[in-house]
Amino acid sequence: MATLELHPDRLLPPDPATRDVARQLYEAVRDLPIISPHGHVPPAWLADDAPFDDPTTLLITPDHYVNRLLHARGVPLSDLGVGVDRLTPEQSRHAFRLLCSHWKAYRGTPVKFWFESELADIFDIGLVPSAATADAIYDAIAEKLATPAFTPRALYERFDIEVLSTTDDPSDDLRHHRALTEDDTWKGRVVPTFRPDKYLEPATPAWNGLVDQLAGVSGVDTGTCAGWVAAMENRRAYFKEHGAVSTDHSHRDARVEPIADAEAERLYALARAGTITAEEGATLRRNLMFQQARMASEDGLVMTLHPAVHRNHHGPTFERYGADVGADIPVAVEFASALQPMLSAFGTSPGFQVILFTIDETVYSRELAPLAGFYPSVYVGAPWWFIDAPEAMVRYRRAVTETAGFTRTSGFIDDTRAFLSIPARHDMSRRMDSGFLAQLVLDHRLTMDEALDTAIDLVVTAPREAFRL
Amino acid sequence: MATLELHPDRLLPPDPATRDVARQLYEAVRDLPIISPHGHVPPAWLADDAPFDDPTTLLITPDHYVNRLLHARGVPLSDLGVGVDRLTPEQSRHAFRLLCSHWKAYRGTPVKFWFESELADIFDIGLVPSAATADAIYDAIAEKLATPAFTPRALYERFDIEVLSTTDDPSDDLRHHRALTEDDTWKGRVVPTFRPDKYLEPATPAWNGLVDQLAGVSGVDTGTCAGWVAAMENRRAYFKEHGAVSTDHSHRDARVEPIADAEAERLYALARAGTITAEEGATLRRNLMFQQARMASEDGLVMTLHPAVHRNHHGPTFERYGADVGADIPVAVEFASALQPMLSAFGTSPGFQVILFTIDETVYSRELAPLAGFYPSVYVGAPWWFIDAPEAMVRYRRAVTETAGFTRTSGFIDDTRAFLSIPARHDMSRRMDSGFLAQLVLDHRLTMDEALDTAIDLVVTAPREAFRL
Amino acid sequence: MATLELHPDRLLPPDPATRDVARQLYEAVRDLPIISPHGHVPPAWLADDAPFDDPTTLLITPDHYVNRLLHARGVPLSDLGVGVDRLTPEQSRHAFRLLCSHWKAYRGTPVKFWFESELADIFDIGLVPSAATADAIYDAIAEKLATPAFTPRALYERFDIEVLSTTDDPSDDLRHHRALTEDDTWKGRVVPTFRPDKYLEPATPAWNGLVDQLAGVSGVDTGTCAGWVAAMENRRAYFKEHGAVSTDHSHRDARVEPIADAEAERLYALARAGTITAEEGATLRRNLMFQQARMASEDGLVMTLHPAVHRNHHGPTFERYGADVGADIPVAVEFASALQPMLSAFGTSPGFQVILFTIDETVYSRELAPLAGFYPSVYVGAPWWFIDAPEAMVRYRRAVTETAGFTRTSGFIDDTRAFLSIPARHDMSRRMDSGFLAQLVLDHRLTMDEALDTAIDLVVTAPREAFRL
Repeated sequence: MATLELHPDRLLPPDPATRDVARQLYEAVRDLPIISPHGHVPPAWLADDAPFDDPTTLLITPDHYVNRLLHARGVPLSDLGVGVDRLTPEQSRHAFRLLCSHWKAYRGTPVKFWFESELADIFDIGLVPSAATADAIYDAIAEKLATPAFTPRALYERFDIEVLSTTDDPSDDLRHHRALTEDDTWKGRVVPTFRPDKYLEPATPAWNGLVDQLAGVSGVDTGTCAGWVAAMENRRAYFKEHGAVSTDHSHRDARVEPIADAEAERLYALARAGTITAEEGATLRRNLMFQQARMASEDGLVMTLHPAVHRNHHGPTFERYGADVGADIPVAVEFASALQPMLSAFGTSPGFQVILFTIDETVYSRELAPLAGFYPSVYVGAPWWFIDAPEAMVRYRRAVTETAGFTRTSGFIDDTRAFLSIPARHDMSRRMDSGFLAQLVLDHRLTMDEALDTAIDLVVTAPREAFRL
Repeated sequence: MATLELHPDRLLPPDPATRDVARQLYEAVRDLPIISPHGHVPPAWLADDAPFDDPTTLLITPDHYVNRLLHARGVPLSDLGVGVDRLTPEQSRHAFRLLCSHWKAYRGTPVKFWFESELADIFDIGLVPSAATADAIYDAIAEKLATPAFTPRALYERFDIEVLSTTDDPSDDLRHHRALTEDDTWKGRVVPTFRPDKYLEPATPAWNGLVDQLAGVSGVDTGTCAGWVAAMENRRAYFKEHGAVSTDHSHRDARVEPIADAEAERLYALARAGTITAEEGATLRRNLMFQQARMASEDGLVMTLHPAVHRNHHGPTFERYGADVGADIPVAVEFASALQPMLSAFGTSPGFQVILFTIDETVYSRELAPLAGFYPSVYVGAPWWFIDAPEAMVRYRRAVTETAGFTRTSGFIDDTRAFLSIPARHDMSRRMDSGFLAQLVLDHRLTMDEALDTAIDLVVTAPREAFRL
Repeated sequence: MATLELHPDRLLPPDPATRDVARQLYEAVRDLPIISPHGHVPPAWLADDAPFDDPTTLLITPDHYVNRLLHARGVPLSDLGVGVDRLTPEQSRHAFRLLCSHWKAYRGTPVKFWFESELADIFDIGLVPSAATADAIYDAIAEKLATPAFTPRALYERFDIEVLSTTDDPSDDLRHHRALTEDDTWKGRVVPTFRPDKYLEPATPAWNGLVDQLAGVSGVDTGTCAGWVAAMENRRAYFKEHGAVSTDHSHRDARVEPIADAEAERLYALARAGTITAEEGATLRRNLMFQQARMASEDGLVMTLHPAVHRNHHGPTFERYGADVGADIPVAVEFASALQPMLSAFGTSPGFQVILFTIDETVYSRELAPLAGFYPSVYVGAPWWFIDAPEAMVRYRRAVTETAGFTRTSGFIDDTRAFLSIPARHDMSRRMDSGFLAQLVLDHRLTMDEALDTAIDLVVTAPREAFRL
């Protein structure tokens, strides 16, 4: 049975001289606290601090990064607990065996790095996942999860998290965030993020119900577009009072385009009547995005945009399991022209700030770096989701830095609901940035002092500045 | 005169430690048999086993990889034998001199690697091509080609080919494949590939004649769209009986979209009447592609797609020389939305399997890896044609692996009509994958055991699984 | 205070063996004369040979590469002298302090390499820019600029420039170029470049005035499209007489499409009447581009195309400061289909030659290398503007070489109005190409002799051939 050992130099460049410099840079940032300005950990976990369930429910079922490659190897999602109300102990163990048996499929993926880091660093397990080791690993994790050292709050402290952002519905009352703030025994910082996507898609079936709900929680009549805007302002203020620093937006395209008030009201009325077409819905959505940008320029909440994903690509999977199960596929995106109206209006406003994320890497050198290299409000977001991975991180720095430098980038975001993977994710980013900077030292683009200063900036200064933390 | 020597470490990474690991990995795969699941070698060569003609007719005239760069240097294609019925000995020698005189133009291209490998490894020639060496090289090759050790079958055995796929017209009677099967002295395996492209383009002038021909060979009336489908099913079955494992498709875009039967019949009737527009033709073609996918889900023939090439880009060249002479230029492609109807319908069907090839590298991390990382039916094809080359191979692995791992990739395909280049092409791929894996070992993403296992999988398991061999 | 020292091995690959080879290659090209076939240095500088103004007016104000990142850090462009008639000494010093204080923002950008090279190599200054060193650096530069060794002609000689191209309006009388030619004390070569963009955009407000001006300078009535063409032929001939070797074109897309003469005249008449729509203007422009290509095939002036930039992206900045201040953002581009009509018509004409530049790197392997690898008239332009930088140079060679080799590339262009940065820009290119070639030597794709020959070709032969110098 192969022993799982994490090499201290993992992910650092192989050339000995470069590795030596990379090691020094990594040493300087390895133990800095974690700033996590965008992610999907449920705030209830920390508010309630209940022990985690079984290993599968914690580590497999909710993590579509893990699930999708098993699905591609022919494993039904339901075998992994997706869409299952509560796994029996047998089901949970079976799912864990499936993951371990297919461990080979993860070679070369970041999931392998994250998961093996979790096993070794968090659970002190020295076994490489395989059919033969699955039960032993499962049992070892299950045993630890039942102990006080493995509750959400204990792990939060052990992970040395300085701030953790959640992602929340505009109608959410943020009770968990409030509970944490009011809890004197809790020393951490968990802030909500305002995620209004669904309220900006007037041509979707759920929209009218959501807009009614928005009226309810805000106490503002959303019968008109002006009302919708006022209600949004109300909820953004509520989120800001509860610690929010940013809003999060993901639509099919990046277009932000104002329309005349009268036209907005006309389309809004069609939407309220349920008779808006898909095309009109997109027009109205782009205007509502413009309104969000205008609000951002006034209330100072940072916008994060990560558009252009074909959601729920496989019809039958969506019908059976719903959204967010790994069946989303990125598509090409255009930022330069799409954002021109927004940036022409707010791009140099002191209050306005926007971070642009992409999975379409072609826009890095062509559009995002040029935009962030001119507009004081624009930051290039770190590689996320599918490209939150070592090679992609190198491509990102190589493509963005020459035009935008380091100071116009967002710092790392983990964007994860896999709470236990957070340290490994930030560690990967620190290792890769150390390696990238080491290369610039080795070919004398940077002095060692400049590289050290930059390495620390990327972990500490960049996220604080980009997210106004 | 410079001596041609093939360094044993060619194409391996320069860092000494990485090279050492790469060498070990390469050693493990270097001598494994060649699996060639997609290519364009004429089956008649092996069926007839006649000695090859002169060096130019074998190595230059039919190989547009070689010709196009000479054309770009100002050499007329006709000087290379393109469009010439039969080269005189003087013409053949002259063409070979042109290639050798322009050898400098191939620096940094894979043609240099392939051709120099052929000279040294197959013909045991130690001369670097140049104006000064052209005649000597030509004579040495010509002499060898006349000997029994250089007939097609002798070379097939020497190359240690386990299986060789050809590419064939649906109306082809596959007599050469049959002849080989029925020949007890022949131990190899040559399988046909069903390539129906021309029969799916109803707005082209040749279409009606082809569809008539299809009716003739299948014995099925192709007067209706339903008839066309039945005739296709008939021919696919015929190909399958003759050993085919895959079908091959290359259209201007990747769209696969069903339309209602009545609408299909209406458009088909227009096409039969010769009055279909280009746009209607594209609509019908996308529906016929959907039919091919449906058939694939039933008969299990693997689909290979390599869309988005602007064929015959230079009008005068097409008029004089016809197609496939090096004047095709790739264009941007979109897969995620284009294939959504097909994958929603058949993406999780056990019978269905599709390999997606691209020359537009932007889709690797954005679309292809996410698709193959979710759908059990989708594989990401190896870089082909213009990007069947070392740097592009590295980009491919770097872009695809982090999302789809290694197991969702197709294994190497040589896709060539240049029979003598096949060993060098597979060798290049094995070297590059060894180098890529070595880097993952050096930065501890993989253990040596995992890398060795993966290296062998990529040569042996991947093509067998992707092509159902 | 950190000492500024330029390491002799800067930008060379870190692996010791690769660096050793790269050094040898670089030694062979380091001191070759500079060929600058495309740029924006004002010819009056060399014709008049007046001493340069203050450091800011020379090094900051006109250089949008420098300005844009300061603007992104919140510095108003006016503080850098942009849009300011004449800087006071205090303003000039203040601007220089701003640059030095924000020096950190340039880490990892080519501006850092260029500027530090200028400081050390041209001004012999050993200080790293910072708030603390700003005044000392400013004073040292100002002092030197007042000496005869730092006049434009003295620097031209010191830089060892063989030929310098400027970029000029078709209506320009080229008096400065003529003055230089007629000056017996001047041994250099400064050639104009014909840049007719504004005359090809019939839907813009300035167009009618420009076309009238064109009639004035050419003596040809531009009341008809045929007249416009004749006037253009007249001015191209005038430029050619004054030494021009190329014409330069930058429009929103790359499309070149002929229309019938009658339709051209109809649209032209609408444009003259000021009633042409944007769409009709684009149609006419694409036809006028076709006319330029036809003229190029006859007069032999090389076309350079660098399309697809969203100019003046930020409305308020354009209104206040005008164009070319760093607010241009690239957009996606398509070449293969866009240029098909032009290349089908002239692609194999002996007189015709075109160099394709891009900021959208996706077209390198997909379209540009395939085009240049077939058409004898097409060259792939070096990375320019945002991607005139080390990592992008490597990506360019890696993406282009495998299909088009080295001989189908343009050689380096500096494309700059920052006269003092020209040596550093060419030096960067020579270093990066040496490093790239060294990698091909180390993995035995090239012999050392082949690499040396290629390194020299890229500096000497490539620009001469591509630009017909």
